[in-house]
Amino acid sequence: MNGKKNRNRNQNLIDVALGRTPGDLAIVNARLVNVYTGEILDGQSVCTCADQIACVGPDAGYAIGDATTVIDAGGATLIPGFIDGHMHVASSFTAGEFLKYAAVGGTTTIVTETLEPYSVAGISGVLDFLASLKDQPVTFFATAPAMVSTSRGAMGIDPADLETLLAREEIVGLGESYWQAVLQNPDVFLPIFAQTTAHRKLLEGHSAGARGNRLQAYAACGVSSCHEPIKADEVLDRLRLGIYVMIREGSIRRDLAEIARIKDMVADTRRLILTTDGISPAELMEMGYMEYLVQKAIDCGFDPVTAVQMATLNVAEHFGLDDRIGGIAPGKTADLVLIPDPRTIRAKVVVSRGRIIARDGKLEVAPRKHTFAAASLNTVRIPEPVGPSDFGLPFSGDGNTAACRVIEMVTDLVTREVRLDLAVTGGEIKADGANDLAKIAAIDRARVPGKCFTGLIKGFGMNAGAMACSAAWDTSCVIVVGADETDMALCVNRIREMQGGAVVCQAGRVAAELAMPVFGLISELSLEELVDRLKAIQQAAADLGVSFPDPLLSLIALTGAAIPFLRICEEGLVNFKDGQTVGWVAES
Amino acid sequence: MNGKKNRNRNQNLIDVALGRTPGDLAIVNARLVNVYTGEILDGQSVCTCADQIACVGPDAGYAIGDATTVIDAGGATLIPGFIDGHMHVASSFTAGEFLKYAAVGGTTTIVTETLEPYSVAGISGVLDFLASLKDQPVTFFATAPAMVSTSRGAMGIDPADLETLLAREEIVGLGESYWQAVLQNPDVFLPIFAQTTAHRKLLEGHSAGARGNRLQAYAACGVSSCHEPIKADEVLDRLRLGIYVMIREGSIRRDLAEIARIKDMVADTRRLILTTDGISPAELMEMGYMEYLVQKAIDCGFDPVTAVQMATLNVAEHFGLDDRIGGIAPGKTADLVLIPDPRTIRAKVVVSRGRIIARDGKLEVAPRKHTFAAASLNTVRIPEPVGPSDFGLPFSGDGNTAACRVIEMVTDLVTREVRLDLAVTGGEIKADGANDLAKIAAIDRARVPGKCFTGLIKGFGMNAGAMACSAAWDTSCVIVVGADETDMALCVNRIREMQGGAVVCQAGRVAAELAMPVFGLISELSLEELVDRLKAIQQAAADLGVSFPDPLLSLIALTGAAIPFLRICEEGLVNFKDGQTVGWVAES
Repeated sequence: MNGKKNRNRNQNLIDVALGRTPGDLAIVNARLVNVYTGEILDGQSVCTCADQIACVGPDAGYAIGDATTVIDAGGATLIPGFIDGHMHVASSFTAGEFLKYAAVGGTTTIVTETLEPYSVAGISGVLDFLASLKDQPVTFFATAPAMVSTSRGAMGIDPADLETLLAREEIVGLGESYWQAVLQNPDVFLPIFAQTTAHRKLLEGHSAGARGNRLQAYAACGVSSCHEPIKADEVLDRLRLGIYVMIREGSIRRDLAEIARIKDMVADTRRLILTTDGISPAELMEMGYMEYLVQKAIDCGFDPVTAVQMATLNVAEHFGLDDRIGGIAPGKTADLVLIPDPRTIRAKVVVSRGRIIARDGKLEVAPRKHTFAAASLNTVRIPEPVGPSDFGLPFSGDGNTAACRVIEMVTDLVTREVRLDLAVTGGEIKADGANDLAKIAAIDRARVPGKCFTGLIKGFGMNAGAMACSAAWDTSCVIVVGADETDMALCVNRIREMQGGAVVCQAGRVAAELAMPVFGLISELSLEELVDRLKAIQQAAADLGVSFPDPLLSLIALTGAAIPFLRICEEGLVNFKDGQTVGWVAES
Repeated sequence: MNGKKNRNRNQNLIDVALGRTPGDLAIVNARLVNVYTGEILDGQSVCTCADQIACVGPDAGYAIGDATTVIDAGGATLIPGFIDGHMHVASSFTAGEFLKYAAVGGTTTIVTETLEPYSVAGISGVLDFLASLKDQPVTFFATAPAMVSTSRGAMGIDPADLETLLAREEIVGLGESYWQAVLQNPDVFLPIFAQTTAHRKLLEGHSAGARGNRLQAYAACGVSSCHEPIKADEVLDRLRLGIYVMIREGSIRRDLAEIARIKDMVADTRRLILTTDGISPAELMEMGYMEYLVQKAIDCGFDPVTAVQMATLNVAEHFGLDDRIGGIAPGKTADLVLIPDPRTIRAKVVVSRGRIIARDGKLEVAPRKHTFAAASLNTVRIPEPVGPSDFGLPFSGDGNTAACRVIEMVTDLVTREVRLDLAVTGGEIKADGANDLAKIAAIDRARVPGKCFTGLIKGFGMNAGAMACSAAWDTSCVIVVGADETDMALCVNRIREMQGGAVVCQAGRVAAELAMPVFGLISELSLEELVDRLKAIQQAAADLGVSFPDPLLSLIALTGAAIPFLRICEEGLVNFKDGQTVGWVAES
């Protein structure tokens, strides 16, 4: 019971609010964006006690004493700290490195998915990941992984693991559950949904492309958000069904400019949210984090107060966290950002939980470096080194050609299924780099270690060598694409040695590599070094002929369960439309 | 575990949404107020499955089959069922009788206080009261009683009782905690607040008259609502602090007309709510319930969509119930009201949990009559009949006069303390009906049964007889005011015989009475009979000289802990400003 502790904490806060004892930090002479009323108020002050706001208003000066740190805003504008409601923190960087750039711009709360560590390291991996988010300059919440996977064997989080996570205060709900998988596997996901809502926690949605009665059915399951709309009409469809729409502007997609006209289509914007859905190290360093989104929303024509609400109060209300974050009011967490004016989202001072963590783009509180558990650093458990023959495609049928089911790249992320009659050479099907036909394999590294499926991919652009990564989406696989089986094996074996990473090989040697030893997903390099390494990998992939803007992203997304249409995992090729797993030999 | 049950329920819902099986009820050809987007949409249909909405939109007709009940709205307007977010259901009527009038106008959810049964019958009384709200045509939620009382001995709910209540799903938070009491007794209330928020349930506020740093301090305690503002400026002060403001329009006060200009003062109305805070049987029958408030809001100039939001989505969001009520969307409870047009709030059809419960003002589903437990019917436990001498005010001091602390009525509810030098006659102070000086006594009937305090009251208008009631606010007292001690005793003894009620006596006989056997608070009469009895009591009180609009309300409010300034309980007179209990003999 922490009743006693809370009582003292609240009593101190009340004493400051009443003017009995001085506050810790005061920001005076500010314009204030009141996200509750939609007002911009001049001549406002805020005073804090420990990590909370004690008082706000024109007269909060009574709570200032000799020991109070006073910041004179000089008429600058005070807004609540930003909240990113849908982030994949467990992607390439440690939280500590991420925050060196993410925390300076005014973001004070981040809600992250946890499916990536769960896929490869189970509940203990998730708990270690959550531990890495504690005691940081900003506050993290998280969702439990629903575990939609291309691997049928990985589908659906274990109920006991879910219970462990739902009991934790920082777990605010169940993470994104792709709509097709939910409607295709109701016996798997509806019990998980019911278990979550029994805890009064929410269901994050993912309804990319859903419309009509299937969108209705997905909404009826109780999902309360979607970050996938790419058109304003899709936003409207979801808002009308009571779904919070997270407008995505991050490294996966940038939809804000296209969607912005929603502001003229609805009278009420309370269910609109801005989110990144993940950001690459390079774009984070270059463009910034949530402050970039809020500025862009204003630049796209959103009213500044509305833009701020979309990154603060609306997000807090969606997650049921508005009792503590999302606005500037007594009793709320002291998460505050001072910006030049309501239309200029550039943080002069960032206060997180009552502490000044950044000024003028410089971090003043160092993020904590987490020491990960040994199990989290040993997740590439492929039992033996692989060889070129592991990627063979033997064909025992009649004739000189075989009818093959092939993944074809349509964009850098979307694929489709094509059927090709391919030559049988020496009893097997070969890659043909000259004709942009490569081999692709997914090798499980954690759940059924060593289980491997090899298929064919067209349009990846790879005319030589191979490229692999252990961060394959929605699975516990190493994913490898190659025009050459020897280079494919070399890539995978190098990843196995590094216990995770990304590798490009050509002509029997490593052309570029990045170690990602944490869960096989995360580099422990500084963000600056990480960006350099990723650029080198991109260049090495380009040298093989791959012309996608981010070849590594295109590679690891091939196992993703939410992207149409033909995907791959260690079990085989997976048809997105019906969720069925199939082989590379096409039925006649 | 009800995972299995939920799974089947959700699967049925999904099947209807997908068009695989027909829905139960369809309302077609409607205008629809979409509270999420703020739109009014034409040509909409809604289809239900059991108690939930399966699909909504222009095309929901695909879910209609032969077995579907179809209502053609003919262009009439469909809105979500109304929610009263702050009601005192345990006041004079049973839930069943209340609903005969309350459920026909479109209210489908009611959040009620439970402090009244707790005061007189403890946790078992609250549980019996909650049982009376189950399986009714509309849905009830409730708050746990904070127990602010004029009696210091009654102050603060027992933590074990609170835990019992917080564990229940229908308990959405802690009920109103008057701000003075919280700030005066932080050791009592802050642990109760912490216990409640540990369950992620909310704290209902009551900040009548608070301003400046005391309002800041009260907000800092974490309270999330207030239904007490009587001026638009007070509304604005609270909205700015992130507090949901419930605009009160009921039998205690009618503040909507005065407050309505708030609509022009803020850009965002999401935290404005309409509530009754209790309604008298006569006004319920005459004016209706929440539909009256929504209509009045429109008549006061609120946009119709905003008015509907203030009685639906905004309330649901405040209580964290918007995952199930407050809007018309798939997966939400099928609580629907068909009205002629968006500006005419007159229910043609009311659907509650998927059932048609009323049409054109006629109830189609009878409320359930609850059989209360024996303990709930025996709560006036005054051990012996009282006599006139129990209300004596003996004075042993020197002189012919005594300096007396006297309650003076300022309005029909507000009092103040006056000090009068009164004649000592035969060693005691007497009532003086000719000069509007009456005696007043509070006799505990449940907690410390028989404990009695007698004092003096001026300005009640009673020049003869006496009036008593067992429904004294915030205490477990019978409250009695009289110009004649014999009539006072007769009133109290008659209430004791009836095990609760209201009685007016004059010249040694009962002039009017109403039995209130349930908790000593609630009549089991029909609402029509109840109104007649209350009118008879009002007339009998008027015959004694009492000219307040509702003499019984003025009487029972005298023990109320939230009304300034001098109150009474079985422990003595209570100073509202500092919470101190004092006697009737004034200090020099």
